Amino acid sequence: MKVGQADFRTIWLNDDGWSVDIIDQTKLPHEFVIANLKSVEDAAVAIKDMLVRGAPLIGATAAYGVCLALRANSSDEALEKACNMLAATRPTAINLNWALAQMKAGLIDLAPEARVDIGYELAAKISNDDVETCRRIGKNGLVLIQDAASRKPGETINILTHCNAGWLATVDWGTALSPIYHAHNAGLKVHVWVDETRPRNQGAALTAWELGSHGVPHTIIADNVGGHLMQNGMVDLCIVGTDRTASNGDVANKIGTYLKALAALDNDVPFYVALPHSTIDWSIKDGVKDIPIEQRDGDEVTRMTGRLASGEIATIDISAPGSPAGNYAFDVTPARMVTGLITERGICEASSSGLAGLYPEKQSKD
Amino acid sequence: MKVGQADFRTIWLNDDGWSVDIIDQTKLPHEFVIANLKSVEDAAVAIKDMLVRGAPLIGATAAYGVCLALRANSSDEALEKACNMLAATRPTAINLNWALAQMKAGLIDLAPEARVDIGYELAAKISNDDVETCRRIGKNGLVLIQDAASRKPGETINILTHCNAGWLATVDWGTALSPIYHAHNAGLKVHVWVDETRPRNQGAALTAWELGSHGVPHTIIADNVGGHLMQNGMVDLCIVGTDRTASNGDVANKIGTYLKALAALDNDVPFYVALPHSTIDWSIKDGVKDIPIEQRDGDEVTRMTGRLASGEIATIDISAPGSPAGNYAFDVTPARMVTGLITERGICEASSSGLAGLYPEKQSKD
Repeated sequence: MKVGQADFRTIWLNDDGWSVDIIDQTKLPHEFVIANLKSVEDAAVAIKDMLVRGAPLIGATAAYGVCLALRANSSDEALEKACNMLAATRPTAINLNWALAQMKAGLIDLAPEARVDIGYELAAKISNDDVETCRRIGKNGLVLIQDAASRKPGETINILTHCNAGWLATVDWGTALSPIYHAHNAGLKVHVWVDETRPRNQGAALTAWELGSHGVPHTIIADNVGGHLMQNGMVDLCIVGTDRTASNGDVANKIGTYLKALAALDNDVPFYVALPHSTIDWSIKDGVKDIPIEQRDGDEVTRMTGRLASGEIATIDISAPGSPAGNYAFDVTPARMVTGLITERGICEASSSGLAGLYPEKQSKD
Repeated sequence: MKVGQADFRTIWLNDDGWSVDIIDQTKLPHEFVIANLKSVEDAAVAIKDMLVRGAPLIGATAAYGVCLALRANSSDEALEKACNMLAATRPTAINLNWALAQMKAGLIDLAPEARVDIGYELAAKISNDDVETCRRIGKNGLVLIQDAASRKPGETINILTHCNAGWLATVDWGTALSPIYHAHNAGLKVHVWVDETRPRNQGAALTAWELGSHGVPHTIIADNVGGHLMQNGMVDLCIVGTDRTASNGDVANKIGTYLKALAALDNDVPFYVALPHSTIDWSIKDGVKDIPIEQRDGDEVTRMTGRLASGEIATIDISAPGSPAGNYAFDVTPARMVTGLITERGICEASSSGLAGLYPEKQSKD
């Protein structure tokens, strides 16, 4: 998407033809910095230290990390070692293992000297496939925004989102934000309520940055505000992403998503979840009961990082000294509160049968 | 309540016998600073800039502000002017107008030279009455915690609260926290989930500070977390305060309260609102429709103030530069989601008839 006048992806091959450029997302929203990855170690650090984040982008970065490893040594052992190292960077990221498995499967039977070229082709394919998946999610979700617009001609469509499920979390387009970019690009009047998404503020920092950079009207709000807006008719629809979708349509997403879904249900606001098929966990039949919730360091709650008036980046303590903090990173929104799932294959009901309709090939084992 | 070993109120007459001391709550939780008010302008600034906050404390501060004005000029015009100036500081705070009306009614018929002494008496009475009111709210609410404790003997009772409705928001005891202090003082095992309460973080800064100072076990959480906790059986009851209660039991409170009430309803967690009668607005029959919601400066959302590692207090920008922020300060929780209202007269249903039962003298005009 646009950053100023230029089009960007979150990861691309450098002009040198072999090293890999990424947007260093730890520097956002205060600085737009491009980092250059020259080794598998660089790629591992980029994932581990969250220079890249978002399941699809982590997968693409890992794939290119394998290529960088193979340039140095394309033996079976080196391939194995690179995959292991990369897999260990973010153990819960399901796309990471998926991308590494794709790379290994495509390379292990080749002669070592052929692996580098084919590796780059595979990594490019993983990237391009993600862009295409997200583009399709956007096209499918666009219909919902067009429908909303047709019900109030000439008026702005207000969409609430939580966390960052935009192009920064993918290779391009994003998931939840892809329909919004498509609507904006098509000339529809959209405005996005951006939940700041404490404690890591991905909404205020990343979603607001990418919407602003692309020129999409938006307003940052505290996570507490969405209920009031929905109660007062100021939200036409909600679209969020998901980290893991259970096969019954329950949706694990950034903590606080469930609260917005409750408000949407109470006020008859449609609540949609946008997702690529890769985030569906077919093995989980009951998301509320069975999706494990990561707990992170309480310091993420009690401290904040941002920019001083001097321009310097600083971290401050914002809570009562000595008070402990709990940091549950995700919650699960029950399928009964989800109006529909927007996937690259179309929109379906958030239910086993809804998902089965779109992905019949996944149902054979039941 | 306790700060270390000492007992404090939030507002008291200075040893000089006329100026007024307050705890400067903008300095909390990092510093415990006492500010001295010498004029009605000082009092107005203290309210407007939130050195004092919380409906009852705002009322008490306004009452003393009138006294400070009268010391300079005790004419009818000066009394009127002081009340108007103080009333304009926080338009949504009903206690402010209530306290000013009390002062005006008690003073306007007196000879100007008698007004200062009687004014201080009235202000002291407003303060002391608030302490007694909050003590009674605590005694009444204590029964709910005792009931919860009797259902799980020996186990800790987990209570979720939002914003700060503790002693810092009143003259002493608090409203929502008063039952908790009573329970803790009575030896019951309580633990409080403290919503940080963005954007101003009154929970993480003030509620956590006062619970910690008094020795009550607690954990700070992002505002996004409560739904997950309730969904997983980790909350026994919610108790929040209110800035304005409609006569039908709808409750205006800090933005985000409504979202927690939705989660409580969805998970069968009792949701109580603690309030002194002074926050009931008998003229409003439908709180959701008719309680106006204050909008504050977006900078409160996009910037945070806290303490650097050096100990210095600093303000940082935390959001994407140039992105606008919306800042709705309150929301309204419909009465249907409120299990009960805890008042100084007892606990009642959140409804017109519930409130009428406790306050029959207010019903005559209907």
